[in-house]
Amino acid sequence: MVIRFGPENPGANRNPLSVANKRIYDPVHRFVELSTAEARLLDLPALQRLRRLRQLGLAYFAFPSAEHSRFPHARGAMAMGTRACDELARRAPEMFAGDADAAYQRRLLRCALLLHDVGHGPFSHACESVLGVAHEARTKEMLALGDVRAGISALEVDADDVLGLIVGDPSTRFPALRELVSGPNLDADRMDYLLRDAYFTGVASGRYDADQLVSSLRLFERGGAAVVGIDSRGVVALESFVVARYMMFASVYFHHTTRLFERILQDVLRELWPDPHALDAIDEFLRWDDFRVLNDLREKQSEAARALRERKRTYALAAEFNAEGDLRAYETCERALRERYGDDAVWADEQSQVMHRLPLGAEEGRRTVWVGTPSGLVDAREASDLIAKLSGKAYWRKLFVRRNKASVGEARKLCAEIISASRA
Amino acid sequence: MVIRFGPENPGANRNPLSVANKRIYDPVHRFVELSTAEARLLDLPALQRLRRLRQLGLAYFAFPSAEHSRFPHARGAMAMGTRACDELARRAPEMFAGDADAAYQRRLLRCALLLHDVGHGPFSHACESVLGVAHEARTKEMLALGDVRAGISALEVDADDVLGLIVGDPSTRFPALRELVSGPNLDADRMDYLLRDAYFTGVASGRYDADQLVSSLRLFERGGAAVVGIDSRGVVALESFVVARYMMFASVYFHHTTRLFERILQDVLRELWPDPHALDAIDEFLRWDDFRVLNDLREKQSEAARALRERKRTYALAAEFNAEGDLRAYETCERALRERYGDDAVWADEQSQVMHRLPLGAEEGRRTVWVGTPSGLVDAREASDLIAKLSGKAYWRKLFVRRNKASVGEARKLCAEIISASRA
Amino acid sequence: MVIRFGPENPGANRNPLSVANKRIYDPVHRFVELSTAEARLLDLPALQRLRRLRQLGLAYFAFPSAEHSRFPHARGAMAMGTRACDELARRAPEMFAGDADAAYQRRLLRCALLLHDVGHGPFSHACESVLGVAHEARTKEMLALGDVRAGISALEVDADDVLGLIVGDPSTRFPALRELVSGPNLDADRMDYLLRDAYFTGVASGRYDADQLVSSLRLFERGGAAVVGIDSRGVVALESFVVARYMMFASVYFHHTTRLFERILQDVLRELWPDPHALDAIDEFLRWDDFRVLNDLREKQSEAARALRERKRTYALAAEFNAEGDLRAYETCERALRERYGDDAVWADEQSQVMHRLPLGAEEGRRTVWVGTPSGLVDAREASDLIAKLSGKAYWRKLFVRRNKASVGEARKLCAEIISASRA
Amino acid sequence: MVIRFGPENPGANRNPLSVANKRIYDPVHRFVELSTAEARLLDLPALQRLRRLRQLGLAYFAFPSAEHSRFPHARGAMAMGTRACDELARRAPEMFAGDADAAYQRRLLRCALLLHDVGHGPFSHACESVLGVAHEARTKEMLALGDVRAGISALEVDADDVLGLIVGDPSTRFPALRELVSGPNLDADRMDYLLRDAYFTGVASGRYDADQLVSSLRLFERGGAAVVGIDSRGVVALESFVVARYMMFASVYFHHTTRLFERILQDVLRELWPDPHALDAIDEFLRWDDFRVLNDLREKQSEAARALRERKRTYALAAEFNAEGDLRAYETCERALRERYGDDAVWADEQSQVMHRLPLGAEEGRRTVWVGTPSGLVDAREASDLIAKLSGKAYWRKLFVRRNKASVGEARKLCAEIISASRA
Repeated sequence: MVIRFGPENPGANRNPLSVANKRIYDPVHRFVELSTAEARLLDLPALQRLRRLRQLGLAYFAFPSAEHSRFPHARGAMAMGTRACDELARRAPEMFAGDADAAYQRRLLRCALLLHDVGHGPFSHACESVLGVAHEARTKEMLALGDVRAGISALEVDADDVLGLIVGDPSTRFPALRELVSGPNLDADRMDYLLRDAYFTGVASGRYDADQLVSSLRLFERGGAAVVGIDSRGVVALESFVVARYMMFASVYFHHTTRLFERILQDVLRELWPDPHALDAIDEFLRWDDFRVLNDLREKQSEAARALRERKRTYALAAEFNAEGDLRAYETCERALRERYGDDAVWADEQSQVMHRLPLGAEEGRRTVWVGTPSGLVDAREASDLIAKLSGKAYWRKLFVRRNKASVGEARKLCAEIISASRA
Repeated sequence: MVIRFGPENPGANRNPLSVANKRIYDPVHRFVELSTAEARLLDLPALQRLRRLRQLGLAYFAFPSAEHSRFPHARGAMAMGTRACDELARRAPEMFAGDADAAYQRRLLRCALLLHDVGHGPFSHACESVLGVAHEARTKEMLALGDVRAGISALEVDADDVLGLIVGDPSTRFPALRELVSGPNLDADRMDYLLRDAYFTGVASGRYDADQLVSSLRLFERGGAAVVGIDSRGVVALESFVVARYMMFASVYFHHTTRLFERILQDVLRELWPDPHALDAIDEFLRWDDFRVLNDLREKQSEAARALRERKRTYALAAEFNAEGDLRAYETCERALRERYGDDAVWADEQSQVMHRLPLGAEEGRRTVWVGTPSGLVDAREASDLIAKLSGKAYWRKLFVRRNKASVGEARKLCAEIISASRA
Repeated sequence: MVIRFGPENPGANRNPLSVANKRIYDPVHRFVELSTAEARLLDLPALQRLRRLRQLGLAYFAFPSAEHSRFPHARGAMAMGTRACDELARRAPEMFAGDADAAYQRRLLRCALLLHDVGHGPFSHACESVLGVAHEARTKEMLALGDVRAGISALEVDADDVLGLIVGDPSTRFPALRELVSGPNLDADRMDYLLRDAYFTGVASGRYDADQLVSSLRLFERGGAAVVGIDSRGVVALESFVVARYMMFASVYFHHTTRLFERILQDVLRELWPDPHALDAIDEFLRWDDFRVLNDLREKQSEAARALRERKRTYALAAEFNAEGDLRAYETCERALRERYGDDAVWADEQSQVMHRLPLGAEEGRRTVWVGTPSGLVDAREASDLIAKLSGKAYWRKLFVRRNKASVGEARKLCAEIISASRA
Repeated sequence: MVIRFGPENPGANRNPLSVANKRIYDPVHRFVELSTAEARLLDLPALQRLRRLRQLGLAYFAFPSAEHSRFPHARGAMAMGTRACDELARRAPEMFAGDADAAYQRRLLRCALLLHDVGHGPFSHACESVLGVAHEARTKEMLALGDVRAGISALEVDADDVLGLIVGDPSTRFPALRELVSGPNLDADRMDYLLRDAYFTGVASGRYDADQLVSSLRLFERGGAAVVGIDSRGVVALESFVVARYMMFASVYFHHTTRLFERILQDVLRELWPDPHALDAIDEFLRWDDFRVLNDLREKQSEAARALRERKRTYALAAEFNAEGDLRAYETCERALRERYGDDAVWADEQSQVMHRLPLGAEEGRRTVWVGTPSGLVDAREASDLIAKLSGKAYWRKLFVRRNKASVGEARKLCAEIISASRA
């Protein structure tokens, strides 16, 4: 006979800020601990809504198990950030102005990571590109909602500090925390979502050595400010992190089926929201999520709506070009297809602009990650030949044709011939 | 530069029944292979709908990552069943009437497992208890839909054979396959969902040694019919399978938060479907899924609708009794709570009737699993002391009170006193 | 370009007691952190010798990958104990007399777990049974060696405190630590070796939910003393721990091949050490390890030596009885075999005396593990029906015959007939 | 009550070539199946000796759990090769001259992989460099031993065919099998040992997606001969395989502690075998293994023997250079150290010659791996931008100083200054 209690458990810690109060199973981190106040924040509608926003949008059309939402990710990013923060504090306690400051920063970081995704609309990027409002802008409005303000306040952190971390405010008093929340490289958001996306898609090559990476995190002083970097023992873990990102882009994020349905989705969203300002009011925005979009298109008869509903691939991949040197072959193929079938029949999907978020694609002159060595701080590209080799841009260029306007077999043959000729 | 093709790939196997044609990532089985015809079957609306029916209903309120749908499970059950079937055929090829028969049975088994869940309504058990129609009955209607019939036919299997396996028809010509599809013990459905639910909830103790279990499967002749059992080398794997089931029941399926929200859900469904015959027509039934239910309650103002929307626990657990010997204490507590707060305020949730599906709860006299030993076939309870010890029923009895009609702290104290007294 | 330094790293923490100084890969715990002083202790010959004592003796004859030594286990037990200790301290800091006391106890626990196995001889139990000296007695002598004393002293802990924890001294000042080092249930030794043995043998069903178990550990006051128990949220994890032990006993520790070669090994050891006092001197004892034994028997021509060298099974399993109710059939078979082939030809291997170390076999009246519930502390058998069902003894009885003195096939047939008759 | 039998099991398949007869646990492959005849081959002294040859030599000084021997690897390579072979046969059955030929090739491949490591001496590479005899040369002698010949013959395969595969005979009748046994890229040896070494060291970044890689293997015809390559769906898996190799080289195989003790080991071996022909006779060679070497140095008093026994690092790492562009700094540091402390005090360890075994280091003009695409076969460097970027050599250059002839801190400072200056 066991009696398990919820929040009113008389034996439990009564301090609502004690992180030890709640323990939630999580397959990526095994479990995540929460304070009562954090659990209450998560119960608010603005956060429960994250359960209806999928982390990977329509990627489940290619990876059927990738049905995970942003809700467990919020908790996971918080867990990962907490581990990072505790390691930084253990190694450099002098970077904090005493115990109270350290405790404040820890609560602040946890709160920002719990909330970092609340500004996302249905299907995130598709929604942004149709409505033209970045999720960071929505975040500010979400944090201003009455119950969210009260929830943040119950955590005894300042809502403006939280917002600064999420939107990456350059003037924040907490630059190291900002790196952990919204930085371009060693952020807890990415540390969690890479693990999580690999776990839920089943793409084994997307795993990296998170334990070693977190244990290697260090605070360095650079130009008077604290920057997050790694100890030289962590170079291999950092390499595995960089490679895992590449693998997930190559396998999942830019998978041709994912891209194809995201393209179709944009048509559906324009049909649902003919007025691009339809969701401007935060109240209306809050009423939308992935499930409502999918539900609302049940009765629509447009080609795009049917395609999403019945997983009809209205486009077909004609050819794919992933090497930098393929640019000419890609352009020749695109031109040939357009000439043959008309512009309407061809979709040239060129993903390279997104690469600036990878250290892989870091521009020359910009730093990637600082590595601490006895002969001083060096850039990760200097510390690791692998990371240096992976520098420069990566490209994922795809040519699709519309099935109802082109012969797929013929289009593929056309491209294959051009490619073979270009190789000779 | 790589060119990847979809179904029209000119280099691909043109035989639509070749299972090697498609390879889909799956985190539980790493990947699953499908024939073109199977992939087409899965693309039908009746099967795509499974993406919007969650495997574990509302358990995600307690296990946030348990968001997985029945769709990948259908493929996973098929993969597990195929492994089982191949092992049986490898060990006892004489049980099949030649290669053509073996190939037919393999296709049939795969088809039945792909389709075994199509009869489920939104939130499955809750839907059944509100509408009073078992999912098996719906299955028959689903298989009769034109496009589904055509899809089954394209697999070159008989739709009646498929139905017989799913509903467990005692007169089927394929009793061993029936065990693998809908048997009470060694069915591929359970073999997959236990692994899958453990994977997605993160409950580590729910894993079992599936590889050894599948490799131990054997066909035995018993009373003139083929029965599925295991080789004596597989006893430890079978033990781990039985224990994993127990662990998942104890941790997940009967978790108090899961049970509580399933109770609330029934109220919501009755509100949505005041007419219990509302979904009788298969066309209407097909229009419903978990996402639509969640979406439709967005604007409802009832207490139950709000509770689900905002994860409000309108009930609280007062005490939990999991041992057989706790019956008296349970009844005393229930009586005391009813006296104090009224019948309306108390919900006594007694889960034991479900136990007959576990070998744990197999009635005396009924067999569990045959184990082949050199001194003949013995029942698993004889082969394993662990399984014998776990025989008999298991109980999960819980007392909840309504938060708006009872003081939770007081109710818990009352129960705790009764329990302490009963122990002395 | 990276420069990695060893202990002289000028940037490293100079405090030799800082646990953050060294980070060692470990596949069970991912990595283990050590202080410089702990690393130096591990470099001593008395500890390096653990690399040549295998954790599972001759079990590698049945589980070829089970080649792991006690050396990484020492570090793993320390890592597990540290996690347990930190959890206890986080939940009940008032149990420590201030920070210095907490730090002392942590160092002491780590030191005791690093050293807990140093008293083992070659092949541990076989060595003990041949020489008649328990490993605990050797431990005292090992801790008295000059370099070991100095190494302990460098850790700033008292060698007598260390000894008290390892040998389970009832008068130790640190009863909770003693439970973690040498207690019968929740000791870090067992927590590590179960995980480790499951990992290296590949027996999947031996895994348990260590993360949840450790996070559930609590200190309770009982009769004026601190006892280690668990929080009610940890009951499922405790169940998985108990089941994992059972699984490892059933699959690995009492595997018939393991048992058979351990039997042969005893003959070999008696041949190597005709004088049972040969290793009494600690200096001589230190010169022996598993590898030397295996090496020394290279040139021996006895039947036992050849059997070990060439993996010749000089005994064969005739029958195995694992259920409590099998006692009569076991005795009948044993008698029949002895009558047929003579006492010399039969080895009856009855393992039940070892069971008292499992809660499974806890005598009535003795406690297993305390579980904290709001209605007070209860025994784990009361909190968990599964643990209650598993109470009582478990038996692994085996009958072997010598291959050169009995016909194996005939002996098996004889037993099978007796068993079949006993069932009817 | 269970009765488990060994080889005489009357119910078992009596065909000694049936692979289903024995099932052995293996943590990397979960379990491995063997025929009775294969199991008997493994029981021979020449193969049991592999239990006393460690896969990673002295790497356990840096990775304490890397204690695994070549014995389970032999079985694992066989398991991996079998999966590869079955996939090739499933996809291109026409490459085999009927069922009997396919069965022969399968048995042959399995046999060759079981035996592929029998020619290794103690500590493999160290032994080879001291004695000057390559392990391939020993292999021929081992296969000629009477009991080994008989064991191969019992498998119904030709011993010369086996030898041809192991030593990579260019005139073998089975070029595809030769690639799987001793090829430079897609060999089952490497596929197993990378997984195995990552598993036992605990280096998470050394894992790769073996399941997808194996499932992507294809036979192509090239210049009239069969070559092993991959399907274009397997490119990401191949990338993960290439990266995993890099990670294991960077983390484990060239770890400075591993390298340092391998250097010391060479001195020890020269002391043990003053005559380089000491082990020329195959009988004498067979008497040696890692354990005997470690045992024999127990009483030696040389500096090297003591260093190995007590894990004394007689050398210390002064600086490490892993980027191609570091050559000049490396040479400058080496010169400076030699000038300061004398040639005797410095060991410059330059690992680059080993890189030709990686596709990474494939010379321009040589192929890596063929990838099948609809526009024909292309080299993996063309199919994958990642593999192209990783082409060229990788370097691991290290400078060590002898601790008794140089000040470690000073040497490191000297190098650090040169490195900093070279960066400016």
